[in-house]
Amino acid sequence: MTKQIQGNYFEDFRLGQELRHATPRTVTEGDQALYLSLTGARFALNSSAAAAREVGYDGLPLDDWLAFHLVFGKSVPDISLNAIANLGYAEGVFRQPVYPGDTLSTVSEVIGLKQNSNGKTGTVYVRSRGAKADGTPVLDYVRWVMVRKRDPDSPAPEPHVPELAEAVPAAQLELPANTNFAKFDTGLTGQPHLFEDFVQGERIDHVDGMTVEEAEHQMATRLYQNTARVHFNQHQESQGRFARRIVYGGHVISIARALSFNGLGNAIKVAAINAGRHTKPCFAGDTVYAWSDVLETMALPGRGDVGALRLRTIATKDRPCADHPLTDADGNYDPSVILDLDYTVLIPRRA
Amino acid sequence: MTKQIQGNYFEDFRLGQELRHATPRTVTEGDQALYLSLTGARFALNSSAAAAREVGYDGLPLDDWLAFHLVFGKSVPDISLNAIANLGYAEGVFRQPVYPGDTLSTVSEVIGLKQNSNGKTGTVYVRSRGAKADGTPVLDYVRWVMVRKRDPDSPAPEPHVPELAEAVPAAQLELPANTNFAKFDTGLTGQPHLFEDFVQGERIDHVDGMTVEEAEHQMATRLYQNTARVHFNQHQESQGRFARRIVYGGHVISIARALSFNGLGNAIKVAAINAGRHTKPCFAGDTVYAWSDVLETMALPGRGDVGALRLRTIATKDRPCADHPLTDADGNYDPSVILDLDYTVLIPRRA
Amino acid sequence: MTKQIQGNYFEDFRLGQELRHATPRTVTEGDQALYLSLTGARFALNSSAAAAREVGYDGLPLDDWLAFHLVFGKSVPDISLNAIANLGYAEGVFRQPVYPGDTLSTVSEVIGLKQNSNGKTGTVYVRSRGAKADGTPVLDYVRWVMVRKRDPDSPAPEPHVPELAEAVPAAQLELPANTNFAKFDTGLTGQPHLFEDFVQGERIDHVDGMTVEEAEHQMATRLYQNTARVHFNQHQESQGRFARRIVYGGHVISIARALSFNGLGNAIKVAAINAGRHTKPCFAGDTVYAWSDVLETMALPGRGDVGALRLRTIATKDRPCADHPLTDADGNYDPSVILDLDYTVLIPRRA
Repeated sequence: MTKQIQGNYFEDFRLGQELRHATPRTVTEGDQALYLSLTGARFALNSSAAAAREVGYDGLPLDDWLAFHLVFGKSVPDISLNAIANLGYAEGVFRQPVYPGDTLSTVSEVIGLKQNSNGKTGTVYVRSRGAKADGTPVLDYVRWVMVRKRDPDSPAPEPHVPELAEAVPAAQLELPANTNFAKFDTGLTGQPHLFEDFVQGERIDHVDGMTVEEAEHQMATRLYQNTARVHFNQHQESQGRFARRIVYGGHVISIARALSFNGLGNAIKVAAINAGRHTKPCFAGDTVYAWSDVLETMALPGRGDVGALRLRTIATKDRPCADHPLTDADGNYDPSVILDLDYTVLIPRRA
Repeated sequence: MTKQIQGNYFEDFRLGQELRHATPRTVTEGDQALYLSLTGARFALNSSAAAAREVGYDGLPLDDWLAFHLVFGKSVPDISLNAIANLGYAEGVFRQPVYPGDTLSTVSEVIGLKQNSNGKTGTVYVRSRGAKADGTPVLDYVRWVMVRKRDPDSPAPEPHVPELAEAVPAAQLELPANTNFAKFDTGLTGQPHLFEDFVQGERIDHVDGMTVEEAEHQMATRLYQNTARVHFNQHQESQGRFARRIVYGGHVISIARALSFNGLGNAIKVAAINAGRHTKPCFAGDTVYAWSDVLETMALPGRGDVGALRLRTIATKDRPCADHPLTDADGNYDPSVILDLDYTVLIPRRA
Repeated sequence: MTKQIQGNYFEDFRLGQELRHATPRTVTEGDQALYLSLTGARFALNSSAAAAREVGYDGLPLDDWLAFHLVFGKSVPDISLNAIANLGYAEGVFRQPVYPGDTLSTVSEVIGLKQNSNGKTGTVYVRSRGAKADGTPVLDYVRWVMVRKRDPDSPAPEPHVPELAEAVPAAQLELPANTNFAKFDTGLTGQPHLFEDFVQGERIDHVDGMTVEEAEHQMATRLYQNTARVHFNQHQESQGRFARRIVYGGHVISIARALSFNGLGNAIKVAAINAGRHTKPCFAGDTVYAWSDVLETMALPGRGDVGALRLRTIATKDRPCADHPLTDADGNYDPSVILDLDYTVLIPRRA
């Protein structure tokens, strides 16, 4: 058994450890077409190279979540192959745009470790950084996962839980170099609403629903070279807790983002991930709906052309979101809720 | 609800109104690969850049129906989001070839309006034009759809039904600039039959059948950024008339065209759409078959290298077409028929 | 019926006959993305253009099996449309790398014919050669198929069974021009094992399983423009022996190769096909597992940077391979075995 990939167990991680993840990946127009085809994304800067160039990009940038999934996927064999649960995200910042031809790779640093009281598992916190071959940073984020111990008798490490920001502040958002959204043309999206039209506390139902098929989530997850076994092996999962393959949570994020075009069509770019939970598994056959809560409207220092919205997007399965399902009086999630994502998007300002 | 896309209702349309549709789209080699993968297309000029260059193209042109679906898809949010039925097509002309890197957008003009006698719906006629960012025309066509009224009490517009040609005449077909098909090599297709080998009234069974899967038609329709809800939302459709998602009619057209390679392998290009009806819905699990009737053989003015065939291609589901199923004695379609398409293709002439 | 593709019957083949197959195909980055998405492949040289250039390639080469399937697919309409069984492969050699933009075509030569004793069928041996438009050889291989006779009364040809090598010897392997793997970085794959770490007789379980969906194998097989009807037509197959569409055997090969990354991650390239049998059909819903037996370790003449491993990879369905399922005491395949493939891979040597 020594030649196979074993993944790391809780006791294999060390605070400060750096993991260089395998299989760098050159992204292409093929990835972009598949992403549209699998998610239904329609945001202007990722659909039209002409529109992207108009605001200062060098070409058609990869959808931010496509870049995220590729960077994330590389970390799976080292970080979460033996994970029980993906617990959270924080401090995610999207940096420079990715274009076809760029080769992405990922490095993670262990920034926290805490054994659980049962002695069988522990929480590992990592900061993962995606970059191009020339070192240009693409995105970085913190995630924490519950990982099995190989040997329950191995000693617990000194507990260290990192302090994480509740949200990425406006001053830490990074805008693509040389962009200017003052000339952004809402005719591209067919939606007139810009930064000034959104107010804190506003809730937007994204109306449409998208049913997920096995072939679709498998194709998406393989495209990202994410090797987590629960997504692909029905023979094994048929004996598992759900008797089903589980849809990669990132595919749900992508569908929710794609659905959010209906109402947030001018939210042209994802700038940050503040927090996120996959509150329940999604399975093939489920129909995903979504709605968003505007948590905050943020002016950006030195930018009169573009602002930011901090959003909380909730995805449900098999339940329309006209009444914004979320939690009951006790704070328990509505049974339909599968995603609770806190993130920040850029949206042009009115000239 | 004010931020969501509402689509237009019958009373929102005005004769002569021009609608600039959202989400221009840069097409790539990724779209071409997905199109082959989803439809089984094998026509020579869309498979081999070498073959395309040999007859005068600048590279590998997009399949004509892929270009059509992209142009059509853009018009859905404005024209047919509140439509009950897609009633017909006419006067479709394919103009200059589309290459990877081109950005397509669509503009539609309202050319006819007629309220139905029930007062609840009306027919809207539009001419949609697809063009590249530099204005080069790609294709244009008329379609008419039955659209709901928002308010049944709103006044009926002055009825205006446009006069539409029964078919696009040879003189109005547009050939790609700088092409010469005199050197077309039938070894590329493995089929010897050229323009001179086809006669009016000839019927060709395309033999093969292709079963459609949910993931396939969803991926195709999302690739075209066509947002019609009936194709994607099983949760909602399970309560609908068919209890199923409906396959986008254009996907059936593409499969029928791909099947027609068997017998019409040298019909290298679609030149016009004369008329078309989706006579019955197609669902995942259905196996599509097709046959074609040669309605007319058309010499092209000034072209000794290439001619045109006006074809009627019938697609069926779950019924082979060796006996050319069409209508019964009363003119009712055979229950298996799902598409009745009248279109014109180019085919090289014998040297 | 004269315009349709009929395929060749046994009596249509002649010893020494050369068949130029239809539909040359320009390959693109779209094909590469789809291949990753459909198979889960993660080998370094086909994932990262930077990694490929580092060892001497001109860009991101097509996965060897993707090139094989494209070359193979072209031969189907002429060789195996009327085949009952694909009996074997031999003498397959992968030659120069294929890059996006290359146009592939296939020519086959009939190198053997032998009518079966029942008088109704015969075995046809062909050597198929895939090449680029400029004549650069891409790969060639022998396969033999059992083909129906159109007319059982037609005379049997003089029997001729070609002598085929048991395996491609090291001296006949062809390495991509200008490559040097001495600098190959195992950090790219996350696996340390190189040529020197493998010994003859070693067995490696590839651990992971991959469930195949109908949409996936249909999309893969259409991408290769392989027209064998059993893969696509559920309406017809529902009346057939298995009542199911059969997954293209090449898709199983690709999945087995992708799974083999787990344990053979540095086996960067396929160099030869020595022999192969599709021992049982694979259907949608089956979960494919695989294990490999190292048949031979081969030094390569004049190359200190890279060696070769002759592998036997066994794929099963719905059965993990920790205990290396193969045959029973009587030599009959374990009922789970669907593929028995003997091939040769390149793997860098320790510096």
